[in-house]
Amino acid sequence: MEVVIDRDAFLRGLQMVQNIVEPRQTLPILANVLLESDAETMRVTATDLEVGARVAIPATVAAKGAVTVSARKLGEIVKELPAAAVALKVTDNASVSLRCAGATYKLVGLSPDDFPPVVPASPASWVGLDAKTLRELLAQTSFAISHDETRYALNGILFVLQGKDVQMVATDGHRLAMSKRSLGRGIGGMTGIVPRKAVIEIMRVLGAGEDVQIAITDNQFVLQMPNFVMAARLIEGQFPNYEAVIPKAHPGRLIVSRAAFVAALRRVAVMAEERNKPVKLALTPASLRLTASSQDLGEAEEALEVQYSGDELVIGFNSRYLLDAISAIEQDQIVLELKDALSPGVVKSVEDEGYCCVIMPMRV
Amino acid sequence: MEVVIDRDAFLRGLQMVQNIVEPRQTLPILANVLLESDAETMRVTATDLEVGARVAIPATVAAKGAVTVSARKLGEIVKELPAAAVALKVTDNASVSLRCAGATYKLVGLSPDDFPPVVPASPASWVGLDAKTLRELLAQTSFAISHDETRYALNGILFVLQGKDVQMVATDGHRLAMSKRSLGRGIGGMTGIVPRKAVIEIMRVLGAGEDVQIAITDNQFVLQMPNFVMAARLIEGQFPNYEAVIPKAHPGRLIVSRAAFVAALRRVAVMAEERNKPVKLALTPASLRLTASSQDLGEAEEALEVQYSGDELVIGFNSRYLLDAISAIEQDQIVLELKDALSPGVVKSVEDEGYCCVIMPMRV
Repeated sequence: MEVVIDRDAFLRGLQMVQNIVEPRQTLPILANVLLESDAETMRVTATDLEVGARVAIPATVAAKGAVTVSARKLGEIVKELPAAAVALKVTDNASVSLRCAGATYKLVGLSPDDFPPVVPASPASWVGLDAKTLRELLAQTSFAISHDETRYALNGILFVLQGKDVQMVATDGHRLAMSKRSLGRGIGGMTGIVPRKAVIEIMRVLGAGEDVQIAITDNQFVLQMPNFVMAARLIEGQFPNYEAVIPKAHPGRLIVSRAAFVAALRRVAVMAEERNKPVKLALTPASLRLTASSQDLGEAEEALEVQYSGDELVIGFNSRYLLDAISAIEQDQIVLELKDALSPGVVKSVEDEGYCCVIMPMRV
Repeated sequence: MEVVIDRDAFLRGLQMVQNIVEPRQTLPILANVLLESDAETMRVTATDLEVGARVAIPATVAAKGAVTVSARKLGEIVKELPAAAVALKVTDNASVSLRCAGATYKLVGLSPDDFPPVVPASPASWVGLDAKTLRELLAQTSFAISHDETRYALNGILFVLQGKDVQMVATDGHRLAMSKRSLGRGIGGMTGIVPRKAVIEIMRVLGAGEDVQIAITDNQFVLQMPNFVMAARLIEGQFPNYEAVIPKAHPGRLIVSRAAFVAALRRVAVMAEERNKPVKLALTPASLRLTASSQDLGEAEEALEVQYSGDELVIGFNSRYLLDAISAIEQDQIVLELKDALSPGVVKSVEDEGYCCVIMPMRV
């Protein structure tokens, strides 16, 4: 392999795939990225055997070929290089020489033959959507992904591509976030649980206005953008019946300014010292009173003017869960639907029908 | 105590002292700040028994008094408050009520009687200098403070106020940084080792164009600015004879662009995998060749055009030490004085006579 590529394009490409490489690997070659050149591009591929991604970078190719080198070292080097042409050449024994301006590197590599295959055969059908929609759907659900590794099926986001809708659901057993958008056209039926690592990487690489293609096969999630493809092994397991979890007709309905509620929650939660940061909400038709207290430190209280239709009610929530759920909403007014002190609350936007977050209450 | 103060001024004041409070304390009251009001200000004081600081914040005082409350909680609360008036009132049992806009807090405090004394009797004489000069002197030496707790006398910066000069020196045994400024007037003779924590806090609180007064007494360093005072217990112990460490007449003299040298050092050091990041410098009259290598990863090389008068020479340095020493220089051209592969190198500015950093070489 012998290619010349632009340093800035090289850096951008590397940054799209290098986070997939895990700091500790079972196989030495998983610490490396695969560099391959064809007629007009150099492809950079990274994998941890669960999630893999490949980016194609325009290149002037003098000789086709392939090699693998340390992802971390290559990233560190390219980050320090000046904005100039980078010449890469594979020498004997899977070594790579890299030249840019006055700097010369010789990198010890590993044979490309041992690099595990990453990207699957093309899926039967793709669903196209814009990057903004995909990013919003992920942002409105990813915070609720479980970190409990024993609940394997909850360690990702359930993607449901059905009818005309793209729907995503995540839950950690204490809260469940659901977000849905209609694409305005039939998209067939595909479903699968996409692991957290792939979700994080997708959110990182999604550009501003690009169109994205996604697909779910029997065992893989695949995402495709111009010059980029990512594949992730789906989580096997049974996702909870989320439709049964979302309350349909809570009688109590609180409408409050998102900004005011967030600020008050943050102020009051300062005095909630426990790990779960419990905050108590006392509701009457015209007001919401937030309180929190800690034996050692003291207490906090704040009242907000709100619209509330429903019975007077006192209910406790993990304030972080409330803040996560509200922060996923962009509109000015939010809705909190309630039934009683023991039933879950439902956070929604006043306008956006496609999002809700169900949160279990706490005893306070 | 009963006062009203502006939230933004309260936050700024707290941030000037609260870092002094250690996360873990031997005495519970050291987790607190002391709040005291006199006629027109509220003073906030923090201490860890080694370093203490006090800030005075303009206040409308309805009743004089004092109390202590958790520094961490107060900081978190004030950070979340809106930009509005904050009303503080000490209630019974060293409790504090705090109100701001719609938020109300009750903070459990501790008696001010148990708060350790912080600021000493006024020193006999002060040295005035501008904040910019003090910050530069600290920035040009603080990086060389030793982190080895067994070498207690090296865990700070030696301040020497003598003749017309303010001089600072720090060393960790592998390198020594010295910076000196003439104040243009006699300032008597004071000397003392100021501990690292005080150095960090001084650099944090130094404003833009303020005048600063400093003093060294038998056992304390004191810094005074408008509405602010900090006192630190001096480190007892013998500081090395730094004048004997600084080579006076090295025959080799390298002049190189600071920016080019920094960039090349960073690029080459990527391939220096050991903890000390050794980089080899090969000098001939017209060129400097930098190299680094690692058994597992490969090697890097870069040549720079330089001016060098002296014998041809190959010498190794910890690249981080070189980068620290060079980064402390603001001028475009730097000087590296050398004798042979076993003698320390001296980094200086071409123009600034007041700064140098002596660095021990490494075998490479």
